[in-house]
Amino acid sequence: MSDIRIVLCRPSHPGNIGAAARAMKTMGLSDLRLVAPERAPAPQDEWMATHAADVLAAARTHATLAEAIADCASAFALSARPREWSPQVLDVREAAARAASIDAPLAFVFGSESAGLTNEELFACQFLVHIPAVPGASSLNLAQAVQVVCYELHVALGATVPTMRTEKLATVEDLEGLYAHLEQAAVATEFMAPGSRLRDRWRRLFSRVPALEREEVNILRGLLKALMKK
Amino acid sequence: MSDIRIVLCRPSHPGNIGAAARAMKTMGLSDLRLVAPERAPAPQDEWMATHAADVLAAARTHATLAEAIADCASAFALSARPREWSPQVLDVREAAARAASIDAPLAFVFGSESAGLTNEELFACQFLVHIPAVPGASSLNLAQAVQVVCYELHVALGATVPTMRTEKLATVEDLEGLYAHLEQAAVATEFMAPGSRLRDRWRRLFSRVPALEREEVNILRGLLKALMKK
Repeated sequence: MSDIRIVLCRPSHPGNIGAAARAMKTMGLSDLRLVAPERAPAPQDEWMATHAADVLAAARTHATLAEAIADCASAFALSARPREWSPQVLDVREAAARAASIDAPLAFVFGSESAGLTNEELFACQFLVHIPAVPGASSLNLAQAVQVVCYELHVALGATVPTMRTEKLATVEDLEGLYAHLEQAAVATEFMAPGSRLRDRWRRLFSRVPALEREEVNILRGLLKALMKK
Repeated sequence: MSDIRIVLCRPSHPGNIGAAARAMKTMGLSDLRLVAPERAPAPQDEWMATHAADVLAAARTHATLAEAIADCASAFALSARPREWSPQVLDVREAAARAASIDAPLAFVFGSESAGLTNEELFACQFLVHIPAVPGASSLNLAQAVQVVCYELHVALGATVPTMRTEKLATVEDLEGLYAHLEQAAVATEFMAPGSRLRDRWRRLFSRVPALEREEVNILRGLLKALMKK
């Protein structure tokens, strides 16, 4: 991810710069560039940058977008507005997939909070990226758009979430043992007549449980056993 | 999307409530629930809710999470922390896909900014949802996590981005005309010898252009023609 930079063009609210730095940090990005920021550095940067002060401190400032992306193989411009003429349009997931396949410096470029990117800035980029959103609704907050882009990049680069502690899963034999036990209990208590189709119901219920564990089956059977003793 | 609610448990910063409302609005969600908010309503709600005052105004407040999700078919708890024991773990994309396939009220549940969800709140939900992020980095800002979840829901429900104005695409015949024209120009100017493999280079270049338009080919050929006249 070190070859992917986030470029903010003319940001007006320092708080958004800090919030963008935090969004980057959560997703493993660290190269932040500011093009002609209205006010930066400012104290509000840091208020919003929780745990991302390093990203903020290392941010570089450029006079123009051209300078900020000069050494990039591709620049992806974010824009909420559809434009009649533009570079190739991608949605943010396609853009992230494309970025993940390129082994060279890349930039994702964001416009100012109020006016977005100018046409000149847009055409300095090779791609126009939209975040799917409700047509006619206002656009995403700047730092929230940065968050969605960094998230998609992180996922495109193969991020996964930690999975649950894996326990021994119940086998078919375990399950059949449970069903037989349930049936025995239901008949013994005259809750159901022998051979009733009622037994299909718990079969249907337990087969819908994803990754049912042996220990869970044993707990149920232990409870049944205790109940039947009483 | 009207059947999907966003539930914020004990939010402490009113600005985050407003920013969450804005995030929801951009993605077409409108049902916001607040469980025991520290301070709400507060003026900061509205500062951050740009264009989503309606979502904020319609938000309902509940005393407990159980009350907020009582009529839901499933509740999805967001948590950054892996837990040893938890409901079934999904990443946010899987969770959105599952939500999109259920035609009943659903909730996505977020904890407080400082401490997240309690264990009791977590187990009131049927799923634990992680947003893939850098292990060890701090968690996402509350409103930014809401933004990612709403974005994934919007995409799972089939959102697409508006595509470019579609022009008549160049045909193979158009392309061959261009290549012949280029070769003719290159030979005539002694830029290359007749039959040189150099001509493979522009073939390779132009075949990589996605959705090359007839008009673009015509513009190139027009320029070539003008240059050769000179």
